[in-house]
Amino acid sequence: MLYLIGLGLGDAKDITVKGLEVVRRCSRVYLEAYTSVLTVGKEALEEFYGRKLILADREEVEQEADNILKDADISDVAFLVVGDPFGATTHSDLVLRATKLGIPYRVIHNASIMNAVGCCGLQLYKFGETVSIVFWTDTWRPESFFDKVKKNRQNGMHTLCLLDIKVKEQSLENLIKGRKIYEPPRYMSVNQAAQQLLEIVQNQRIRGEEPAVTEETLCVGLARVGAEDQKIAAGTLQQMCTVDLGEPLHSLIITGGSMHPLEMEMLSLFSIPENSSESQSIDGL
Amino acid sequence: MLYLIGLGLGDAKDITVKGLEVVRRCSRVYLEAYTSVLTVGKEALEEFYGRKLILADREEVEQEADNILKDADISDVAFLVVGDPFGATTHSDLVLRATKLGIPYRVIHNASIMNAVGCCGLQLYKFGETVSIVFWTDTWRPESFFDKVKKNRQNGMHTLCLLDIKVKEQSLENLIKGRKIYEPPRYMSVNQAAQQLLEIVQNQRIRGEEPAVTEETLCVGLARVGAEDQKIAAGTLQQMCTVDLGEPLHSLIITGGSMHPLEMEMLSLFSIPENSSESQSIDGL
Repeated sequence: MLYLIGLGLGDAKDITVKGLEVVRRCSRVYLEAYTSVLTVGKEALEEFYGRKLILADREEVEQEADNILKDADISDVAFLVVGDPFGATTHSDLVLRATKLGIPYRVIHNASIMNAVGCCGLQLYKFGETVSIVFWTDTWRPESFFDKVKKNRQNGMHTLCLLDIKVKEQSLENLIKGRKIYEPPRYMSVNQAAQQLLEIVQNQRIRGEEPAVTEETLCVGLARVGAEDQKIAAGTLQQMCTVDLGEPLHSLIITGGSMHPLEMEMLSLFSIPENSSESQSIDGL
Repeated sequence: MLYLIGLGLGDAKDITVKGLEVVRRCSRVYLEAYTSVLTVGKEALEEFYGRKLILADREEVEQEADNILKDADISDVAFLVVGDPFGATTHSDLVLRATKLGIPYRVIHNASIMNAVGCCGLQLYKFGETVSIVFWTDTWRPESFFDKVKKNRQNGMHTLCLLDIKVKEQSLENLIKGRKIYEPPRYMSVNQAAQQLLEIVQNQRIRGEEPAVTEETLCVGLARVGAEDQKIAAGTLQQMCTVDLGEPLHSLIITGGSMHPLEMEMLSLFSIPENSSESQSIDGL
């Protein structure tokens, strides 16, 4: 049996009791390590689970799935995923490959950023299409996701923006020279995402378009959702450029405009103090 | 401290390790018992958690929240919610009331139907606004949610339909006579939801409108998501009228029309066999 097990969003203890029981009895346990991270590393998980974990990077899962599935018809193999196995990233590929090999599978669900963002008080059923914001480079500055934000806002829907993660990336030089040397991991902050968004807004104005979002649009920045030190900040997109949310992972919500009074009341619990954004920008944050 | 703890969707062991630890040390533990149910009852939870649970019905939570929060500033109180505390139903009210009383709170997240539906292979980020389908009565047959389905489909988005639950309802007679006698709980099945939807489609045709959904629209019925005996069936809305998904809880997805090949391939794992819908309707199901 192949078990796809969600680990939730915080630390080692966010696994479900059912998930932990399965992990402890499987013959091999893989940890998917390229779409998200917990607030603790592989070693902390290994210690709490009492099991060695095999790191599975994107290459491994996409190109060597047969290794992962080896003997899963006669023994139990676990594939651990931060969040939920069918959350922000689906692992349909692995399920389909298992099915073709006649290997049964089972999913043990957990919280995903896709539902846990509800903790800020915005109603989950009022979220429209989720978008991803990627790190811009000098030559690649995609803006197309902004159309989806626009459509969501036109329909009064909130937009969850998942922020880019770069794990096990090679520099262009190392890639060309075939050197398996990897850059340190990078996680996009709410500040970076907000700055890119404001640049898109400016570009739209230059082109004479009416931007669907402005500096004043109400947004919510979230960091380390589910962890003890999670941070939530509600404020304008401009404020999101400077608010300090600390360590990764970050997510950003662009609200849909029309809000339920209960949503507003909840967001007020997290509102950025009047002049904190100013003082932070003076401090150069 | 007030802890809002998600129980996930299956049975007693779907609580997280962190959640279980908190439950075991809290001075009082409430179980929210009106918006969803697990596949096991209160007794099974009490046995596994090793704690007595206090059932909190809608009345209690809305009118007697102060009882729930009593002494939560000096001791720990847990409020257990099937799924996630901020999933399909948000418990913002309780959080706001706690905050006003100066009681700190913490959320322990878990899977919600809002993210676990991803297990059928449809991509979560392509879901539009979630709708609720309520039991029709002779005199109350709301159709307005159908506009949201239409809007979602126009935008190529899937619609998750949450199906009605009637727990602790009184008959009109008992209500009038003030007798606290309650009807047995009722849970809407995918069959009932599909039949109501088809009636709306017919009504729209009678009014000369072009319905956004037809008998042939691809839908997915889900039952007991996360439980060992979960069932998923992909087929037309017509087929959803007769497919047998067994015990509650059920949910229904109306697909958005344009599908990713990977979504189609995943759905094919769950497609209803050619003539099963016919044979079932012959059987009068």
